[in-house]
Amino acid sequence: MTKHMHGGDVYKYKDCLDFSANLNPLGTPESVKQAIIKSLDHIAQYPQVGCDILREKIAEYEGVQKDEVICGNGAAEVIFTLCRAVNPKKALIPAPTFAEYGQALHSTGCELEYYMLTENAGFVLGEEYLDILHKGLDMAFLCNPNNPTGMLIPHRLLKRILEKCRKLDILLVVDECFLDFVKEPDAYSLKRSLSGFNNLFILKAFTKRYAMAGVRLGYGLCSNRKLLEKMELCVQPWNVSTMAQAAGIQALTETEYVEKGRQTVFQESQWLKEEMTRIGYQVFPSEANYIFFKGPEELFDFCLRKRILIRDCSNYPGLTKGFYRIAVKTHEENVKLIEVLEGGILWQKQ
Amino acid sequence: MTKHMHGGDVYKYKDCLDFSANLNPLGTPESVKQAIIKSLDHIAQYPQVGCDILREKIAEYEGVQKDEVICGNGAAEVIFTLCRAVNPKKALIPAPTFAEYGQALHSTGCELEYYMLTENAGFVLGEEYLDILHKGLDMAFLCNPNNPTGMLIPHRLLKRILEKCRKLDILLVVDECFLDFVKEPDAYSLKRSLSGFNNLFILKAFTKRYAMAGVRLGYGLCSNRKLLEKMELCVQPWNVSTMAQAAGIQALTETEYVEKGRQTVFQESQWLKEEMTRIGYQVFPSEANYIFFKGPEELFDFCLRKRILIRDCSNYPGLTKGFYRIAVKTHEENVKLIEVLEGGILWQKQ
Repeated sequence: MTKHMHGGDVYKYKDCLDFSANLNPLGTPESVKQAIIKSLDHIAQYPQVGCDILREKIAEYEGVQKDEVICGNGAAEVIFTLCRAVNPKKALIPAPTFAEYGQALHSTGCELEYYMLTENAGFVLGEEYLDILHKGLDMAFLCNPNNPTGMLIPHRLLKRILEKCRKLDILLVVDECFLDFVKEPDAYSLKRSLSGFNNLFILKAFTKRYAMAGVRLGYGLCSNRKLLEKMELCVQPWNVSTMAQAAGIQALTETEYVEKGRQTVFQESQWLKEEMTRIGYQVFPSEANYIFFKGPEELFDFCLRKRILIRDCSNYPGLTKGFYRIAVKTHEENVKLIEVLEGGILWQKQ
Repeated sequence: MTKHMHGGDVYKYKDCLDFSANLNPLGTPESVKQAIIKSLDHIAQYPQVGCDILREKIAEYEGVQKDEVICGNGAAEVIFTLCRAVNPKKALIPAPTFAEYGQALHSTGCELEYYMLTENAGFVLGEEYLDILHKGLDMAFLCNPNNPTGMLIPHRLLKRILEKCRKLDILLVVDECFLDFVKEPDAYSLKRSLSGFNNLFILKAFTKRYAMAGVRLGYGLCSNRKLLEKMELCVQPWNVSTMAQAAGIQALTETEYVEKGRQTVFQESQWLKEEMTRIGYQVFPSEANYIFFKGPEELFDFCLRKRILIRDCSNYPGLTKGFYRIAVKTHEENVKLIEVLEGGILWQKQ
């Protein structure tokens, strides 16, 4: 396994308009920044072990029990901690998908099996997924909607997967980090199955919903208390900073902001897809706050020269050169992107 | 292994003067808070993977190479990541010492051996430590000065331990997090041995030196690049928040503040030890920014009723009821502590 490779590297590619990280297009709420500033009065002290108040607020927000919530230094840390706690021998992940599932599993010495999402099938997870689940698997990761494709998993299929996983004693980890930006999150979330299935672990993050990736705050939902306790022993007690706990507590009150961000995404996503299709790109029907598409092989470099950073997806297992992902941002920013993408097609034709 | 138990729980014990966490008595530098506030402009974005600028500044500060530095979400995270990367079968830790070495080792399934620091020997690490090092050990942890006892390891002995560890293929991890507060850190640090010994890993933190425990920032120094690369694969790429990176870069410029904190510690530590001895406590000759002592069995609760939080050390392996640790704080705060500690002795005599 090679080193981590991701979008969002605004440090290497300076002064670019960043379309490579998928965040709420409205930016970090001002109230969250103010909550962090207020928390600075207490940063000499250690952060609260166990994030008691934050977990209480998350439980309220999600409609679950407080002891079904575990917080982490970003959802990525939750993934690593979970893999360490489970210590799986064999696990199943889709390809392409978010790289950290494989990275975290690999770091525990776990053997990986892949379910290939193919271009022919439009990168949609199909019923045949049920057939490849087998008794020897300890964990299966799914991302809903999937990153980088933006495809949702049909809810009835997901429920059947969850049930089959229970039968086969497989822990099903469903990453719902981007579900906040689809039109009907409740119709796709497995949250209501939490209490009935202790082989279900749901991943969520503040990163995308509130555009606060730099703060590091994510969480997991799970009704298997023993697993959560095991996780607590696999991570330092002070993993969530004082600032992150304060930011999270404040962010959860920002319901209007989230709804405004969602409406922006819906409107702009449609506009972007139409424009990109008009220009001549092959656009996949993403349901998330990012768009997956095919374009000329040198598009990443072309955009970079125009100070636009897009996500070259060619390093995802299962993808090749020519696949890209862009975040849905504000209209003004999206207009700039379309100008450049239009140039990218014309430049290729020359 | 039970759950983490530590000092510094100002959330459970509210409105107390906290003597249970050992931080620079001067509190967080104002400039560090300002650096965090400035960093809030960029918290929508992911933090920089690999902490490039921060690692450069740490390397400069420590007089080591940049690629000998690895940053973490507090030194505690560095400990967990290191244990995962090494994946030791057997490791040696002293007792009593900082609980997270054992916790992190245990979470990897490692078998633990203990070197008991005894009251009879004044909790000093002796030459017989050399004899218990053996070929089957993969790692050995030492804390210098030790937490909670405050005892330093004689430098010549430490060098011999390091050499014997190299011969036996043991990774020696030396936690120097509290070394900044001893009178002659350079006479005790193994830093100069870094380049010559790739079986040496030194732990350091911003937490104590700059009183910023809530920010979460620590680091490791090691000349074994392969080990550091392995560690990078065992942890998420965005483990150090944008705020922590900014805070760290600023903190390193605060040399005057650190020196002033050190002088306060030297002066106040001596005063506290004299006062505590006068009152009738058995005080061990700690060289760190905290004092280890024996007192009445109910002293923790007595202090709590007076709104003073001290560290009850009875849950450290190797210690029993009646051992305590207090941080060295400002004179005004220390005066209050002494008043209460004096009451504690009188109350016991009643």
